Amino acid sequence: MDWVSVHALTFDVFGTVVDWRSSIIHEGTRLAAAKGITHVDWAEFAVAWRAGYGPAMDRVRQSDLPWTHIDDLHRLILERLLVEFEIGGLSEDEKEHFNRAWHRLRPWPDAVPGLHRLKARYTIATLSNGNVALLTNMAKQAGLPWDCILSAELFRRYKPDAAVYTGAAALLGLPPERVMMVAAHKGDLWAARAVGMRTAFVPRPQEFGPGQQVDTAPESWIDVQAGDFVDLARRLGA
Amino acid sequence: MDWVSVHALTFDVFGTVVDWRSSIIHEGTRLAAAKGITHVDWAEFAVAWRAGYGPAMDRVRQSDLPWTHIDDLHRLILERLLVEFEIGGLSEDEKEHFNRAWHRLRPWPDAVPGLHRLKARYTIATLSNGNVALLTNMAKQAGLPWDCILSAELFRRYKPDAAVYTGAAALLGLPPERVMMVAAHKGDLWAARAVGMRTAFVPRPQEFGPGQQVDTAPESWIDVQAGDFVDLARRLGA
Repeated sequence: MDWVSVHALTFDVFGTVVDWRSSIIHEGTRLAAAKGITHVDWAEFAVAWRAGYGPAMDRVRQSDLPWTHIDDLHRLILERLLVEFEIGGLSEDEKEHFNRAWHRLRPWPDAVPGLHRLKARYTIATLSNGNVALLTNMAKQAGLPWDCILSAELFRRYKPDAAVYTGAAALLGLPPERVMMVAAHKGDLWAARAVGMRTAFVPRPQEFGPGQQVDTAPESWIDVQAGDFVDLARRLGA
Repeated sequence: MDWVSVHALTFDVFGTVVDWRSSIIHEGTRLAAAKGITHVDWAEFAVAWRAGYGPAMDRVRQSDLPWTHIDDLHRLILERLLVEFEIGGLSEDEKEHFNRAWHRLRPWPDAVPGLHRLKARYTIATLSNGNVALLTNMAKQAGLPWDCILSAELFRRYKPDAAVYTGAAALLGLPPERVMMVAAHKGDLWAARAVGMRTAFVPRPQEFGPGQQVDTAPESWIDVQAGDFVDLARRLGA
């Protein structure tokens, strides 16, 4: 692949940069200890919260909801899960703090060192369905050294809408072929490729927990595949 | 002033963070040396380029031009100045490189150390009429440690349009009173204050060169005034 002409890398975040599952389990366990909640399987809760996210975005895509950012979608899902998991007695402040667990997600161990290496050679930006405040707070907390925070929120469209990818390249002042999308999910890469972006696949086999089936198979249409971000830096000459 | 509740600082950039005048003189002098241009007063050229910026934005504000970002406005002005200053013989690549001198502006000496201190306590973001690519490239080149790049471009309105300030606070997920605008220009602060933001005035008496009259007088409606960014950090407890 010719990546000498690539100037910027844009990153999917949930699952690709940060380990949402273990982070939400950690936050749930802390909440449970503080509130004396003993009956909840937080691994199950974490996966259910994440599973609500696609359908919630679909409601926005289909105009069943007006534009709604991820913090508010997470909160909608949380309200439903608190009923389903029979978690009561949380104050508004406690719910809001728990909802913002998504601002405090922890990076995969290779993410920060890998991003530092990549940043030395490339412009590195988020390109996430997470809102700007979430991504900014997460970066500050986790030490993710982004050059620029780009979000679906800026375009009021959720990935994989083409407008998000073309909009990101335009804001970076680059033609799409000079931007490489980095993601753990092939659907994201496929949509980026469709507008002319380069693609890097970094599978995260542990995203949904141990022993889960995750598609890590190489694809001929993907430009580069790497084991983690440090490996990606090496493969991209950074 | 109660700034304990302030969570984020947003910064004007041209003049406040970077010294556009000396940077453009430097770039012009380099261009002149390379091209054997001897008749141009680059200090005069720099001030003329900057002076064209307000009227160019006015054309966008008045819909005489469709939305046009600053790189393209700078280029429009440059084309006119090349005629007025009788500078010929530049290739398209040379013009484009010179136009992007605005991506390479150098910070005032206190800016980088001051921002690092402020970043330890606050979220720090640009809030500039410069476009996202310009601000991102400038930050990378100059080592400006922004948490987030916010730009008038995201709202397709130029400061001092209220939509830019309210839009920035919304993207940061904060009510305006938890955001402080930092600028060397009172008009910018006045517009920020009008939507409920806090204000910090950091005059830059050398912005237009030595011996120029610059309004550095304190104002009762401004929340904090500082001599430079390190002084601002001290005054804001960072």
